[in-house]
Amino acid sequence: MNKTKVALLGSGFIADIHVESYQRFVPEAEIVAVYTRTAQKAEAFAGKHKIARWFTDLEKAITESGCEVVDICLPNFLHHRAVMIAAKAGKHVIIEKPLSVTLEEADEMIAACKAAKVKLMYAEELCFAPKYERVRRLANEGAFGQIYMLKQAEKHSGPHTDWFYDINQSGGGVMMDMGCHALAWFRWMLGGRPRALSVQAHMQTGLLHKGRTRGEENSVVIVEFEGGAIGVAEDSWAKPGGMDDSIEVYGTGGVCYADLFQGNAALTFSEQGYGYAMEKAGSTKGWTFTIFEEMFNQGYPQELKHFIECVREDKQPVVTGEDGRAVLELIYAAYRSAGTGQKVRLPFHVKVAKPIDLWLG
Amino acid sequence: MNKTKVALLGSGFIADIHVESYQRFVPEAEIVAVYTRTAQKAEAFAGKHKIARWFTDLEKAITESGCEVVDICLPNFLHHRAVMIAAKAGKHVIIEKPLSVTLEEADEMIAACKAAKVKLMYAEELCFAPKYERVRRLANEGAFGQIYMLKQAEKHSGPHTDWFYDINQSGGGVMMDMGCHALAWFRWMLGGRPRALSVQAHMQTGLLHKGRTRGEENSVVIVEFEGGAIGVAEDSWAKPGGMDDSIEVYGTGGVCYADLFQGNAALTFSEQGYGYAMEKAGSTKGWTFTIFEEMFNQGYPQELKHFIECVREDKQPVVTGEDGRAVLELIYAAYRSAGTGQKVRLPFHVKVAKPIDLWLG
Amino acid sequence: MNKTKVALLGSGFIADIHVESYQRFVPEAEIVAVYTRTAQKAEAFAGKHKIARWFTDLEKAITESGCEVVDICLPNFLHHRAVMIAAKAGKHVIIEKPLSVTLEEADEMIAACKAAKVKLMYAEELCFAPKYERVRRLANEGAFGQIYMLKQAEKHSGPHTDWFYDINQSGGGVMMDMGCHALAWFRWMLGGRPRALSVQAHMQTGLLHKGRTRGEENSVVIVEFEGGAIGVAEDSWAKPGGMDDSIEVYGTGGVCYADLFQGNAALTFSEQGYGYAMEKAGSTKGWTFTIFEEMFNQGYPQELKHFIECVREDKQPVVTGEDGRAVLELIYAAYRSAGTGQKVRLPFHVKVAKPIDLWLG
Amino acid sequence: MNKTKVALLGSGFIADIHVESYQRFVPEAEIVAVYTRTAQKAEAFAGKHKIARWFTDLEKAITESGCEVVDICLPNFLHHRAVMIAAKAGKHVIIEKPLSVTLEEADEMIAACKAAKVKLMYAEELCFAPKYERVRRLANEGAFGQIYMLKQAEKHSGPHTDWFYDINQSGGGVMMDMGCHALAWFRWMLGGRPRALSVQAHMQTGLLHKGRTRGEENSVVIVEFEGGAIGVAEDSWAKPGGMDDSIEVYGTGGVCYADLFQGNAALTFSEQGYGYAMEKAGSTKGWTFTIFEEMFNQGYPQELKHFIECVREDKQPVVTGEDGRAVLELIYAAYRSAGTGQKVRLPFHVKVAKPIDLWLG
Repeated sequence: MNKTKVALLGSGFIADIHVESYQRFVPEAEIVAVYTRTAQKAEAFAGKHKIARWFTDLEKAITESGCEVVDICLPNFLHHRAVMIAAKAGKHVIIEKPLSVTLEEADEMIAACKAAKVKLMYAEELCFAPKYERVRRLANEGAFGQIYMLKQAEKHSGPHTDWFYDINQSGGGVMMDMGCHALAWFRWMLGGRPRALSVQAHMQTGLLHKGRTRGEENSVVIVEFEGGAIGVAEDSWAKPGGMDDSIEVYGTGGVCYADLFQGNAALTFSEQGYGYAMEKAGSTKGWTFTIFEEMFNQGYPQELKHFIECVREDKQPVVTGEDGRAVLELIYAAYRSAGTGQKVRLPFHVKVAKPIDLWLG
Repeated sequence: MNKTKVALLGSGFIADIHVESYQRFVPEAEIVAVYTRTAQKAEAFAGKHKIARWFTDLEKAITESGCEVVDICLPNFLHHRAVMIAAKAGKHVIIEKPLSVTLEEADEMIAACKAAKVKLMYAEELCFAPKYERVRRLANEGAFGQIYMLKQAEKHSGPHTDWFYDINQSGGGVMMDMGCHALAWFRWMLGGRPRALSVQAHMQTGLLHKGRTRGEENSVVIVEFEGGAIGVAEDSWAKPGGMDDSIEVYGTGGVCYADLFQGNAALTFSEQGYGYAMEKAGSTKGWTFTIFEEMFNQGYPQELKHFIECVREDKQPVVTGEDGRAVLELIYAAYRSAGTGQKVRLPFHVKVAKPIDLWLG
Repeated sequence: MNKTKVALLGSGFIADIHVESYQRFVPEAEIVAVYTRTAQKAEAFAGKHKIARWFTDLEKAITESGCEVVDICLPNFLHHRAVMIAAKAGKHVIIEKPLSVTLEEADEMIAACKAAKVKLMYAEELCFAPKYERVRRLANEGAFGQIYMLKQAEKHSGPHTDWFYDINQSGGGVMMDMGCHALAWFRWMLGGRPRALSVQAHMQTGLLHKGRTRGEENSVVIVEFEGGAIGVAEDSWAKPGGMDDSIEVYGTGGVCYADLFQGNAALTFSEQGYGYAMEKAGSTKGWTFTIFEEMFNQGYPQELKHFIECVREDKQPVVTGEDGRAVLELIYAAYRSAGTGQKVRLPFHVKVAKPIDLWLG
Repeated sequence: MNKTKVALLGSGFIADIHVESYQRFVPEAEIVAVYTRTAQKAEAFAGKHKIARWFTDLEKAITESGCEVVDICLPNFLHHRAVMIAAKAGKHVIIEKPLSVTLEEADEMIAACKAAKVKLMYAEELCFAPKYERVRRLANEGAFGQIYMLKQAEKHSGPHTDWFYDINQSGGGVMMDMGCHALAWFRWMLGGRPRALSVQAHMQTGLLHKGRTRGEENSVVIVEFEGGAIGVAEDSWAKPGGMDDSIEVYGTGGVCYADLFQGNAALTFSEQGYGYAMEKAGSTKGWTFTIFEEMFNQGYPQELKHFIECVREDKQPVVTGEDGRAVLELIYAAYRSAGTGQKVRLPFHVKVAKPIDLWLG
């Protein structure tokens, strides 16, 4: 089998997940190179994962690694640059959320990929999480009647890496980090490209990470879609006790609750503790919720397998740069609503350096 | 023991709950009379519950029954009239939620009771539900650190009686019926009388009861309190599958989830079905969540015992007319926010015939 | 109201539960005296609970306290003596489980109470636990079709008081302490007095309390009843993480799972910890299952209210000394089966100093 | 990649699961042929799964299909014959549980494979179920201290195919069908090859399938292992409401509960119902537990991937014919114990036509 060559850009938390996903579940792909800023880290990552080459120069990683696809697991503020280089070099792009920091960047990235005839594949893994996909199929079967409300929550005690606390690198707080999942998933559940009418939001900071970040640590966002259904996104960086990723579906003919962490876990009590319970769980002494196949259950391997298949068979990915852009527009609207206390109508576009400026002013 | 004499006004769903609560758990009280509009129903109710006297005239029920306390379980639009008569007659008042239809009524009721030196006791049972009270005590112990978000949900498939679907009798939809619980409970959790700063809300109608009601069938309301904590109230008349009454508490040092229905239930599968699973459960065939001591677990007996004790020992009730008025003000603000899409600042008072007019216009 | 006078014998863990149950939920009863071995403890207990008199002489507590009922919350080996004195003095008896250490004692106690025409009321609270009673009523409604298996588990990390670890005072380990509940509940579920055909058992010691007790710390017991239904009792003193009290009902037409602790709890995460989560929970830091109205949910107040009502209205209690004796016979059979590896047929009676001798030999 | 050629023997419920497992998760394997008794069924199965060849002659399927591995998904009574042919033909063997009907067959099968130098791989998927494997790794980390009790339950409303109800084809009831999983898993958790000391069992028939089978429909089996730990297996063909596959681990330092079905499910309420909830769920109207990636979560793909890897790399499988034989010996002992009411000591071997004869006599 002729494997599809992938250059992995980034070596943090999510890069590890991508590598493991490819290596266990996507035999059609081969990671031929990794890029990260420091040579020591790059070499260590390559060694650990048996990747043949490593780079500390982003452009070379893209152009000289012999890859057909770049998989971007970089901090938000580097997304635009990486995509522009990749497009220019004629490489397909898999890009982690959020698509970019600004809508202007998003538009340029989409245009560049289109011009270069490369795919811009937006890595929203919730569109592939097997439990959520099961629920989506029930919805499509009509199990819930007319859906009038969707809820999605992602909550934990804060990001794995420092750059996310710096709003100049991330563009915002938990909405940019985790809220983007809810917004993408609402759209996916409502057929992929529903028209969003408005956004209302409330945001809070100065909670668990007071003094460390100006980004919002907790947010509640209500999106209204054409036809009247709403999506309620709850996101937090201030939730102790481990990760929460859960959905609720409300229809006139049914309801559904699904939870990827506590709702899949083995329930454990240990006096001694043990190695690892789940993302951000903290101590493993006492009662814990022990998660299994965490990566698989969040949809990463399925997502990457789909994207590699799209490249190999020249198919249209189910989530693209346009979806990432639509999510970013909702994030802009959410920050604006949090800032003004007003419902913000879509489409919405104001030129700002970063989305959170719409809230912080 | 000299029992405290209570006249029960109303004979619907909640009146039954009050009677059973008194008879099983409040031996200090005696229901001496019941009022309801039709003689046949009044007689039947009195007979069923072994109540000595029944009335079809509201005023006589209050003034001629020999009661010291009236317990008002009437449709919303009758609350004001009943309280005014009771105050005039020097009777203490226990009143089911919501306090009244309008803020003007509320003010008159409070003033009348004050002038008559009778207690106006607002029957918010969530302030007495033993599981929620347990959580509140943990909060007070500091188990959750600084609380930044409270959530409360009440959802089922719609009211038991017709009048609630008629907004001229009820004043509004699910906010008036069930959302009032969340709002009262947020205040209770935050010390009883926290200052509310603002309200944002989204409401929907035309769902499960399309054509039957103009009241909102689903609502999401965000209240911001002084100090920054928010309360998120989710309420629905369009949720199939039985009652949901649940809370979530989020603090910088902890979280808590408590559920009065599914979270207390025996999990049952029955081919044949059986008599009753829980409020609004519908069919009992297949899997159901079988609730026990439903009334006790929602706090009704504890609430009524407290009120009777307040009367007997001349103590200040923990929830009063002022609390009911504060809740109603938040409801006004929620309707206005739903109507305008804007965050509404508190205090808020606009003269309207009924709260829902602020949304429906 | 003329209150029924109760003398409480014992001042340990269960005595506290009884006092609180009477005081909150059984206004028809009045605890007029408490007995415990040491004056200091007796005085403290009486003071804490506002009990008028205290005794350090068992006989005097019964004969001189002016009681009509004795409520025996003493170590197992004192049950027989206390009942014999009470019967002689013409006092009704409420007695905590197990009825006695030996079957000979049980027979004498039953005969003495019968001769004295006093009630011997066996305090099996699971026959009153509201969630379990709800399930029993479903069973009686036919919700589960033909019941072929019942399971009941009680598990925690070991008794509250020292005497229970000493088999000469207790008569055995976790079967005597907790297994008795399962056995009584099976009988109750199967109509009250079903004929038991046989018992199979496996027991283990040397687990969490190695070196501290010769009593069994873990046991699995299978009882076969006439008609073919079986009861499976699982009991442990070696389960870390707090109390488990749960049932499962299996019928050809349905199943039911009910859990009094984790299944009623609020789910809590606390960095700081808090005062108390549930019986034997240990640390309250991290995730815990916070139980509420623990006593009420286990059926203690309902049980004591029933017994006091039986005394006041001269009614037959639903669980009596005969039931306690039948449970003890099953315990004998369980120890014998654990000792021999053979199924033991009922009726079974061998004269031993204490039941556990049938296992330890 | 040179794919490993597999001939699939059988076309029932489990054969479907194997095919889907190979095709989605084991790209190293290729199913080259399928055997089933009737041409029509064989052709349909081959067509549905795009398998190149089909056979209605067992021997030819093995010898003429060009396979290197046979994967036996046949009724129990055909296991022996199929393995003997395969061994003679020099083919590696993957065999579904139970290994065979009798111990004599098992011994011959093991000997034949050994002589032919082919692998006899016993398909116990619970040794690969990712959630259970997670728990096993915690146990190995010492999270639970000294393990003293393991429990495993498999329960549903009865087999998918007729032959299992006929004890002459199956050799017994639910123990042969599902109990074998528990027994294999106990051994796996205790290090793979622990010495079993004794078995106690109780069995019931005439329940949900009264008149249809003489096989036991419900069983409780206690196995004692060297060192004192016990395994408690609960298995049922008489449980309405869908599949239960769950474990409990009890140690002196911790406990763990894991559930592959309800414990992974999305909780769904649907008025209309929908296509499929989980194995043996029955109706999907009302509340159901919607399972996802059922096959993956039970460990089938991981198991088959492991076996194919063992063939390709000539490695020793983690579960072999010897393990299947040890499980069968425990089943013999369980039937004997159920028949005599006595604990049966291991090793145990009595010559019978089928295991259940030891119970039915």
